[in-house]
Amino acid sequence: MSLYARPMALLVEELAKLPGIGPKTAQRLAFYIISGSKTDAESLAEAIVQAKEKIIYCSICYNLTEETPCRLCTSVGRDSSMICVVEEPKDVIAIERTREFKGLYHVLHGAISPIDGIGPNDIKVKELLERLRDDTVQEIILATDPNVEGEATAMYLARLLKPLGVKVTRMAHGMPVGGDLEYVDEVTLAKALEGRREV
Amino acid sequence: MSLYARPMALLVEELAKLPGIGPKTAQRLAFYIISGSKTDAESLAEAIVQAKEKIIYCSICYNLTEETPCRLCTSVGRDSSMICVVEEPKDVIAIERTREFKGLYHVLHGAISPIDGIGPNDIKVKELLERLRDDTVQEIILATDPNVEGEATAMYLARLLKPLGVKVTRMAHGMPVGGDLEYVDEVTLAKALEGRREV
Repeated sequence: MSLYARPMALLVEELAKLPGIGPKTAQRLAFYIISGSKTDAESLAEAIVQAKEKIIYCSICYNLTEETPCRLCTSVGRDSSMICVVEEPKDVIAIERTREFKGLYHVLHGAISPIDGIGPNDIKVKELLERLRDDTVQEIILATDPNVEGEATAMYLARLLKPLGVKVTRMAHGMPVGGDLEYVDEVTLAKALEGRREV
Repeated sequence: MSLYARPMALLVEELAKLPGIGPKTAQRLAFYIISGSKTDAESLAEAIVQAKEKIIYCSICYNLTEETPCRLCTSVGRDSSMICVVEEPKDVIAIERTREFKGLYHVLHGAISPIDGIGPNDIKVKELLERLRDDTVQEIILATDPNVEGEATAMYLARLLKPLGVKVTRMAHGMPVGGDLEYVDEVTLAKALEGRREV
């Protein structure tokens, strides 16, 4: 017999399925939801259903959107000569937060990882090539993650895209701003030295 | 303009209202929910609504339950001569997990805290006295939290209940099992010494 009343046990179970939410946190959240108002519980439930129902992939950049093409792809204020290629929709959010990039995006939805059986055909590579059909795009910025899979994907894309005559760049590696040189790992430090610039 | 599509922004906002869920975690959860199946999202939403709708307070012990009186209060296998008084429903779960206690519970839904303006009338004290009307209850175990409010509540209840001729006990203070004596704080250590028992 579960220690919880049945609807409570179900809620704890459902919450514990979420990433990073263990049974203790799930219990805490469930108690919070139950002690809150009915309206609060309903608007949370509604937000979940609505988000899942209404959010789709943009047919151009494959970012999450409410309508396709998304408002980034259709924005007249964005520079359509640059495409920043990222692995996941959350990477778009991260770059948008900098307010530094005014071009367009392309979300791969993954990275090439032979060990997990993910090849170029399992991510949105073909769809990226499709976008280079006309000559609007001048530069592709490869902003995949700075790890093995991300680097491999960037390498693969660079080799694929360069022959098409488009400029292919990669995000700079280096010391994080506000960091302490002493605590930067040696690989990053080596990359930072290698990529040094005249001041 | 939000960085997210509107339903996504709403979901992140709703999730961030939960305790211990910051904007970063809310975003991670939202992306997880969106990338999952529609059924998963719906069953999570349904569990939230159902739990809030169906969970009520037991009219006897004020624990959370699906039907009142709750299955603990109506269980024939429990010893109705003992009532363990706790602050919150989650404390019932914690004690039930030990499988050591076979009596009944009483959930106060808070602790006396003059600084927060919470007096004896704001928690289920009157309802506890009500349960002592007949002579079934022989012992009241005060299992409020071992902090200032919990101790004050225990003191208050002890003074209130003792004249009624019922045995009033308090959970033992002492060293946590599996702990390291060196790291036990001095107050706990003093309590552990004070409460020493012959072996």
